[in-house]
Amino acid sequence: MTTPKVEVYGPGYHPSQTKHHEWRTVENSATHLLPHLERLGRANPRLRVLDVGAGSGTITASLTRYLPSEGTILATDVSDDILDRARTHAEAQGPDVSRRISFQRASVYELPFPDGAFDVVHAHQVLCHLASPAEAVREMLRVCAPGGVMSLRETDMGMWCFWPAREELEQFRQLTTDVLVANGGQAEGGRRLLSWVLQAGAERADVEAGFGTYCYSAPQDRRTWGGSMIDRLRTGQMRDKGFELGLVTERGIEEMIRAWEDWMAADDATMGIMNGEVIVKKK
Amino acid sequence: MTTPKVEVYGPGYHPSQTKHHEWRTVENSATHLLPHLERLGRANPRLRVLDVGAGSGTITASLTRYLPSEGTILATDVSDDILDRARTHAEAQGPDVSRRISFQRASVYELPFPDGAFDVVHAHQVLCHLASPAEAVREMLRVCAPGGVMSLRETDMGMWCFWPAREELEQFRQLTTDVLVANGGQAEGGRRLLSWVLQAGAERADVEAGFGTYCYSAPQDRRTWGGSMIDRLRTGQMRDKGFELGLVTERGIEEMIRAWEDWMAADDATMGIMNGEVIVKKK
Repeated sequence: MTTPKVEVYGPGYHPSQTKHHEWRTVENSATHLLPHLERLGRANPRLRVLDVGAGSGTITASLTRYLPSEGTILATDVSDDILDRARTHAEAQGPDVSRRISFQRASVYELPFPDGAFDVVHAHQVLCHLASPAEAVREMLRVCAPGGVMSLRETDMGMWCFWPAREELEQFRQLTTDVLVANGGQAEGGRRLLSWVLQAGAERADVEAGFGTYCYSAPQDRRTWGGSMIDRLRTGQMRDKGFELGLVTERGIEEMIRAWEDWMAADDATMGIMNGEVIVKKK
Repeated sequence: MTTPKVEVYGPGYHPSQTKHHEWRTVENSATHLLPHLERLGRANPRLRVLDVGAGSGTITASLTRYLPSEGTILATDVSDDILDRARTHAEAQGPDVSRRISFQRASVYELPFPDGAFDVVHAHQVLCHLASPAEAVREMLRVCAPGGVMSLRETDMGMWCFWPAREELEQFRQLTTDVLVANGGQAEGGRRLLSWVLQAGAERADVEAGFGTYCYSAPQDRRTWGGSMIDRLRTGQMRDKGFELGLVTERGIEEMIRAWEDWMAADDATMGIMNGEVIVKKK
């Protein structure tokens, strides 16, 4: 297999990176999966879910709310450290959550499971960090059982918008994009998701393609999101990588931080992100 | 009042413009309103809805499915011609739909109704065609009853994406944007919707701001959308205005048409549009 193996997660696990991830739940990040989860769960009380690249595990934990009585989730990631954090999060939610989830280190390119081992295979913002997303999709499809579904959601760095308009926020978006690509990732995953799935062997008639959004505008959401972005600029991997690649200066970073602070303080502040969402029904 | 009065709809009513509008329903274009419509309808069987700038009236007609027993809709527009078409559409849906809807020509800047005359005030892709959107919002808020809601949804021309990538499709997006602005409209309504609503006097705590999307990707949706875009390039107002303003050449138009034809034929074709969505709870 000639696939470049990504055995590290490009952005790393500094709190400035993961803090915002911990805000994610199935309710704000995977609603496209819910009708399928409920449909499959009605037919099969022992539903088996694989959550690939589960990271901080907050979506994983929230998925347990939608499982049938004996349903279980296996959460994978390439890092034992982040899986430890995901386990801690699951345990903090109580035994009704933690007893349903197990954790295993695995590369999405070589999932250590037999064909058709899971009824639902889910990945959120995973493919955008990979050099060969279609190969990862092929492997996820392999472990999905006939009659089951694969569920994907990926951001599109070309589909971020800010208000009030500030040049520094556009520069931030560009820096984020450039660092993502420099780490071997994909900038336009949202719009390309369907093409990756077809490259991986799915047929168009078995695919539902759509888009979903994040909106950061309410005061609490502005504080959480803006605070995370400022943390990334102050201490995150995008700062170090931005300097290393000559993409940004110390002064540029400071100007971006001030722009985020102004944005957080503005009553009419809005930020939108559009994500691609795909459901594949495995034949 | 010094507001520039828009007594015409910039894009006009050529079939190349309206054909795509007729695809719109509350299910694909106003889901953000539905929970509020159901909540208010449970409390008030005689719910009064105002649909401002109703155009072809397909959203209006579909809204009747969510009204309480004695609920009614008044649909306005600046053109008697388009209201006649909307009436014909409503009648074609049968008496259960048409008996609930009445039609009246009106400018959104001077709605001929008393304060608080409606429980729900709705407008879809109306503000983006106006020179003074915040003044229109102020007038819509005036006719909304305390305890009722105003519901808005507006596109954002900066938030369109295409796959497969084609320079001609980006040129099409730019031409659409330039013609919209030349007609006196607003290019970034999606991200600015909240700011217009606050300028119109709403308080931030009474506003729910979010985003919703259109995805054209399934074969039937590609045919409908791509076909409409080609019609606009062949016979629509954007063609005439584009020539008049020197924005495009005959050859440029032909290249865009070919790009749309290729897009319609591609199995992995995807197009996404992000719209701003706002609910204001009137105090």
